[in-house]
Amino acid sequence: MRSIIRRGGWTAHTSGLASEHVQGNVVILPAAEANDFLRYCQRNPKPCPLLAVSEPGQAQLPALGADIDICTDVPRYRVWRDGELVDMPTDISALWHQDLVTFVIGCSFSFEEALLQAGLPLRHIAQQRNVAMYRSNMATERAGIFHGPMVVSMRPFKAADAIRAIQITSRFPNVHGAPVHIGDPARIGIADLGQPDYGDAVEVLPDEIPVFWACGVTPQAAVAQARPAFCITHAPGAMLVTDLLNHQLASF
Amino acid sequence: MRSIIRRGGWTAHTSGLASEHVQGNVVILPAAEANDFLRYCQRNPKPCPLLAVSEPGQAQLPALGADIDICTDVPRYRVWRDGELVDMPTDISALWHQDLVTFVIGCSFSFEEALLQAGLPLRHIAQQRNVAMYRSNMATERAGIFHGPMVVSMRPFKAADAIRAIQITSRFPNVHGAPVHIGDPARIGIADLGQPDYGDAVEVLPDEIPVFWACGVTPQAAVAQARPAFCITHAPGAMLVTDLLNHQLASF
Repeated sequence: MRSIIRRGGWTAHTSGLASEHVQGNVVILPAAEANDFLRYCQRNPKPCPLLAVSEPGQAQLPALGADIDICTDVPRYRVWRDGELVDMPTDISALWHQDLVTFVIGCSFSFEEALLQAGLPLRHIAQQRNVAMYRSNMATERAGIFHGPMVVSMRPFKAADAIRAIQITSRFPNVHGAPVHIGDPARIGIADLGQPDYGDAVEVLPDEIPVFWACGVTPQAAVAQARPAFCITHAPGAMLVTDLLNHQLASF
Repeated sequence: MRSIIRRGGWTAHTSGLASEHVQGNVVILPAAEANDFLRYCQRNPKPCPLLAVSEPGQAQLPALGADIDICTDVPRYRVWRDGELVDMPTDISALWHQDLVTFVIGCSFSFEEALLQAGLPLRHIAQQRNVAMYRSNMATERAGIFHGPMVVSMRPFKAADAIRAIQITSRFPNVHGAPVHIGDPARIGIADLGQPDYGDAVEVLPDEIPVFWACGVTPQAAVAQARPAFCITHAPGAMLVTDLLNHQLASF
């Protein structure tokens, strides 16, 4: 899959592709902002679980795959200047320079595979929608220029399935881990589940409990708020496919 | 503590005593009913997690403590004939015979110690009450003469603490393990949390979620329903103190 993406043969989202493999959110920053961002991730491990950080200027990420080249291996990128989206290329080789540091952050695709394997229904997948995401009133810990609200994703479950989902996702601390909230959305500042801030709304049935996980959109929100002079991210849903297997991230 | 109990020096409930040690619910049945009851426990591991089953006629339980004598080591017993409570002695040596089998079933005291150590508040303990228990509409799996509803205990938590409590109790499958329900009590047939079927009611605050665990009273309810000709149990809360340490039951 990664070699197809590298050749430009796939430029869309990667949900459901190479589904046993760990996929990652990508943030690329100049070294000065990268130092702040690394501290930001360290202080906010639930929304920003770091899978890998590159050496400055190195496009390789050997911990995630021997042949990875971050300049070519993401299906579609977003290029930001002063906080404004300026381009959405499929290759960033021409933009690469020796000062850039790449961050790869765990993604809920990994724990969703585990939930599906356990037989738990995921409504947004059944309905072929993006997961519903909300800006909560839970603040992240600031580091340098980076701060902002924790963004959460929501998946509805019946009570027994919610308990099982907490158990299963607890095994995956590197891909957001256990939920950060269950039940009443108003307790974390969400006024209307029908109006997500990102992604698509899904119905919550009367016998279901909304379950909220820290979301990998949180670091992108922090980057948007910090408005660094230059930044590259993946396009939402179009992740870096790594050589790691999801089950390798399970802590027990 | 066990030697004090053996000498008749303690005849009350054992909550908070020898708190690092595993305590057990006790059911003693003649061999014929014991065969049914063993299958009942096997089929209902969440409410009836077996810590030990004695050889018929043997008062020893070496797996739980080298010197245990089940005839003397429970603070107070209940003796049942044809389903009726007929006596509450502190020693059953005179009632012992070669046909009796002892079952020791895990108890929530073990996971409550882990919850308290994790800094989670337990309201019934803070208020020095017994935990609130309810007959749910979840049926247990029948085995021979034994059947009945699953009895559940309820502890209220804020959402983040409820998630943590699910994680912690999941580590203890031999003492009821993870909750069986969270949220709306009506979904499991409980009309009014203020009216528990056993134990004491505790308040559930507006920002709290009721969390329900399978309860060791379930086998006693099944015994009461089956009305065996003869049975001995511990008196509620007056448990067998074993040599096992709670942390030895943690599965990870």
